[in-house]
Amino acid sequence: MSEKLATRPEQLESTTRRDFFKGATAAAVGAATIAAFGSASAQASPSAAFRPIPDVDIASLQRVKQELVQPPFVPEHDQVATGKPKVIEVRMEVEEKLIEVDQGAKVWACTFNGSVPGPLIVCHQDDYIELTLVNPASNQLQHNIDFHASTGAMGGGTLTEVMPGEEVVFRFRATKAGTFVYHCAPGGPMIPFHVVSGMNGAIMVLPRDGLKDENGNPVRYDHAYYVGEQDFYLPKHSNGTYKQYDSLMHGMTDMLEVMKTLTPSHVVFNGAVGALTGKNALKAKVGESVLIIHSQANRDTRPHLIGGHGDLVWTAGSFTDRPSTNLETWHIPGGAAAAALYTFHQPGLYAYVNHNLIEAILLGAAAHFQVEGDWNDNLMTQVRKPGPITA
Amino acid sequence: MSEKLATRPEQLESTTRRDFFKGATAAAVGAATIAAFGSASAQASPSAAFRPIPDVDIASLQRVKQELVQPPFVPEHDQVATGKPKVIEVRMEVEEKLIEVDQGAKVWACTFNGSVPGPLIVCHQDDYIELTLVNPASNQLQHNIDFHASTGAMGGGTLTEVMPGEEVVFRFRATKAGTFVYHCAPGGPMIPFHVVSGMNGAIMVLPRDGLKDENGNPVRYDHAYYVGEQDFYLPKHSNGTYKQYDSLMHGMTDMLEVMKTLTPSHVVFNGAVGALTGKNALKAKVGESVLIIHSQANRDTRPHLIGGHGDLVWTAGSFTDRPSTNLETWHIPGGAAAAALYTFHQPGLYAYVNHNLIEAILLGAAAHFQVEGDWNDNLMTQVRKPGPITA
Amino acid sequence: MSEKLATRPEQLESTTRRDFFKGATAAAVGAATIAAFGSASAQASPSAAFRPIPDVDIASLQRVKQELVQPPFVPEHDQVATGKPKVIEVRMEVEEKLIEVDQGAKVWACTFNGSVPGPLIVCHQDDYIELTLVNPASNQLQHNIDFHASTGAMGGGTLTEVMPGEEVVFRFRATKAGTFVYHCAPGGPMIPFHVVSGMNGAIMVLPRDGLKDENGNPVRYDHAYYVGEQDFYLPKHSNGTYKQYDSLMHGMTDMLEVMKTLTPSHVVFNGAVGALTGKNALKAKVGESVLIIHSQANRDTRPHLIGGHGDLVWTAGSFTDRPSTNLETWHIPGGAAAAALYTFHQPGLYAYVNHNLIEAILLGAAAHFQVEGDWNDNLMTQVRKPGPITA
Repeated sequence: MSEKLATRPEQLESTTRRDFFKGATAAAVGAATIAAFGSASAQASPSAAFRPIPDVDIASLQRVKQELVQPPFVPEHDQVATGKPKVIEVRMEVEEKLIEVDQGAKVWACTFNGSVPGPLIVCHQDDYIELTLVNPASNQLQHNIDFHASTGAMGGGTLTEVMPGEEVVFRFRATKAGTFVYHCAPGGPMIPFHVVSGMNGAIMVLPRDGLKDENGNPVRYDHAYYVGEQDFYLPKHSNGTYKQYDSLMHGMTDMLEVMKTLTPSHVVFNGAVGALTGKNALKAKVGESVLIIHSQANRDTRPHLIGGHGDLVWTAGSFTDRPSTNLETWHIPGGAAAAALYTFHQPGLYAYVNHNLIEAILLGAAAHFQVEGDWNDNLMTQVRKPGPITA
Repeated sequence: MSEKLATRPEQLESTTRRDFFKGATAAAVGAATIAAFGSASAQASPSAAFRPIPDVDIASLQRVKQELVQPPFVPEHDQVATGKPKVIEVRMEVEEKLIEVDQGAKVWACTFNGSVPGPLIVCHQDDYIELTLVNPASNQLQHNIDFHASTGAMGGGTLTEVMPGEEVVFRFRATKAGTFVYHCAPGGPMIPFHVVSGMNGAIMVLPRDGLKDENGNPVRYDHAYYVGEQDFYLPKHSNGTYKQYDSLMHGMTDMLEVMKTLTPSHVVFNGAVGALTGKNALKAKVGESVLIIHSQANRDTRPHLIGGHGDLVWTAGSFTDRPSTNLETWHIPGGAAAAALYTFHQPGLYAYVNHNLIEAILLGAAAHFQVEGDWNDNLMTQVRKPGPITA
Repeated sequence: MSEKLATRPEQLESTTRRDFFKGATAAAVGAATIAAFGSASAQASPSAAFRPIPDVDIASLQRVKQELVQPPFVPEHDQVATGKPKVIEVRMEVEEKLIEVDQGAKVWACTFNGSVPGPLIVCHQDDYIELTLVNPASNQLQHNIDFHASTGAMGGGTLTEVMPGEEVVFRFRATKAGTFVYHCAPGGPMIPFHVVSGMNGAIMVLPRDGLKDENGNPVRYDHAYYVGEQDFYLPKHSNGTYKQYDSLMHGMTDMLEVMKTLTPSHVVFNGAVGALTGKNALKAKVGESVLIIHSQANRDTRPHLIGGHGDLVWTAGSFTDRPSTNLETWHIPGGAAAAALYTFHQPGLYAYVNHNLIEAILLGAAAHFQVEGDWNDNLMTQVRKPGPITA
């Protein structure tokens, strides 16, 4: 592969590698590619993907503690960063616990801070996350954490392995802006087993100057909610009822067999059927903008807001990509988190679902938004009430 | 969440909300984001996602009736809107009927206007759709309609519930440009049951000035075809043959069980295996451009034109997003519709498939295009016919 | 459909077709659409999707032979094209053979050149690929090839059918730049049967001036690796062990039944569990950029590099689309190939997986990267080793 080379744009003019000059000069390539993307600028912007990573004297940085909260709520945060990058200290305790996914369906969950999904962490690009990960002695298993937002060491997985009774402190720089999954990944079959037992969450790394629309203009939100979608694989008795086990490990072999069918028994938002519906509905007012961060650590999903849209959607979770606009439904691959911004125009109840409607209604992947305000007949109206057929 | 705010770009200069000025001035953010997206303009364009929704005197608008036609055909329409927004009147009757999905496989379908999928509606952005939805007394069930293109009231679902023997008139403004699914959504398990029984279709909301390519140049099509992909879940006897029921409701419990496996028995285009193949093949000529609108109301799919491409593809269905270019295969999440434009360069038979080839060939998701014209050896040729191995 | 028309931008000014002038003048539409996409240029660039296809005197073109190599390796190639388009001659032999997918799991594979996936072909846009396809007399079945990169004749499928003992020579022009799947498609159920028996690969059609980032700046890679993901559907005995057959055809009926469940028994990279792990790990150094071409000919997947990212990802495989930036996970629909570029910042072991972690760990879809270099504590560090809980 001697003819291949890796260069950033700024290096191309001085390169002497062979394949480049065989084909074209740097100036000629530059001109062609600028034309291809329709920019009138003689000087194309550098790629957001190849920002230099400067050395930083971490001891000189401001330290702040972030109080994590239970989803769907998100920690207090600024939408635009203030000052220089900070070290953000967070603490998460692992809790193995029996939870009720649906009536008559209990499973031993592995959790960060007791909830499925784990808490959303929020920071700005170039901040450092310093996590104390605690595995209380009351747990049975070894755990760790893989941050998709981090770089190296299996996302931190190999640096954070803690046995029951141990804790570890770990720090990484959030170099990429976007929404990213984190999850436990203790090796081998334990990886999918812990993840589908609920041990995953997300981090939102905001651009330092905040979110932007598809044309680069700033946009802000009034509320942010975090929806973590979870696929569960509960083994059944031959009579169709769900098996219940004395401990996490007792159920593992059976669950691995169900997992191999790739067919979940439950697909839920925030840990249980109905966790975000009825009295737990998410709240907003007409005219307010809501940012929904949606993660799925293991399996594809397709969020849809019934009666609304995704005005701006970062479908792949990257805030350095232009958001898509005006979507009915968006797709999130397993192992990713996405963000969608919507401004409500009508009051009333909205359902927010995984729009495989079987998964939404029969398996559980549905939430509610309750929106207050005045109805706008100009957008939608019932012209004539239901009544006898006239023609 | 006191520090969060929702602002449109035009509001930012005068905002006094705290988090913004803590971080940066509006001008500084503007400059940074303009650079990030590589625009040379000092004035970034407003977001297509936050167009103001003016009040309109609907009584003053021109009214036109749109004659709906059976898919894959689409109603007569202008590609560029003429004059001001209109009120477009459409009528749809619900028909519950026994259909043959494949040889030996019959299912009670719920349909809009008798076809699976229901008819494509076509309008331009800011037009109003005024639908008369009729549920004849010959039907058994309550029905309604949820338009993904509309805003509020569960997409109109709560304003359009009609019992057998009733009709309702309903109107909404098409504020978002793109291709959008509509479907019946009568509540609870009836939602997925009606949808996977065929009760879904699509609307195409064209930009008023027509479609544009990835650089913003206008593009037009010679033909438009509407392909509705449908997953069916037919229960089987223990001998492997498909069960047949006396009525829609008699089969529901069994079908819900099959639905929970998330594994369809059939995945078809336009209601049945072979509905768009052979003598029903779609037609075009070399040099003509075809727009294919493809909807899947419940389950992910991945269209592919064997021997062709998607020259321009609005994969998420939004006409305010740049189309993707030159795709081999594109992905549509369940609950969405996409549009793909292709100009044919070679004559002959093309297969248009869901490129999970098991779903295409064994479950039924395949159509044909028959294209007339002259073969171009310069694009493809058989240099030497099949014959004995020479080396 | 008399009102519809197909026009390229350059034709619009002289068009007299009715629907266009009913709506707007060409100049007005042009201005509106330019504004919509935020370009400051008065002259929008032509669409990459509608490049004219000039006639070429093929006899006058330079001919080169490309030596195909076994994946994950890729043939020697220039990243920027030199000179005019060439005719690139490649030769592929079909081999039907029994392979071991996992311990105790053997399947009769159909292969191009003996490997699953078949070899990666590399060329530049507008080059011609001239393939000699050989079906040795030792095989049992008819085979052919459908190139998603080509235009017409079912992707060449109808021009390349060879019986055992035959060969054919076939040529096509690579008009679209991107990564594209090729696969055997001999008709009817043989299509999915051959594809899920391993008979697929990919071609990379580079832009003549090489790859570009999201702003149109040139980017280069140090290494390119080709990962072909394969879903297998091995029938089982009632005791759970895998059936083994005397020949390809003996197992077909059983395998078709497993295929209809849409649930693979194995999902692997490069033909077998572990084909790219341990001593077969892919290699790189800190600071080097690696291009990963990933194909899945039949089923959706979602690649993720544990501990790394996709700096630039052409998720739909088109090099005329802007790449996405800074992705944690990307989605590839069945029947497509994608390309992802990553520059390594940390040494050590990385797992590259399909991030449905059940498919990655229990079904086999995992590879390793082994990266040499110096660790950067500034990006990630273990602040305090695992130890007793302190608070």
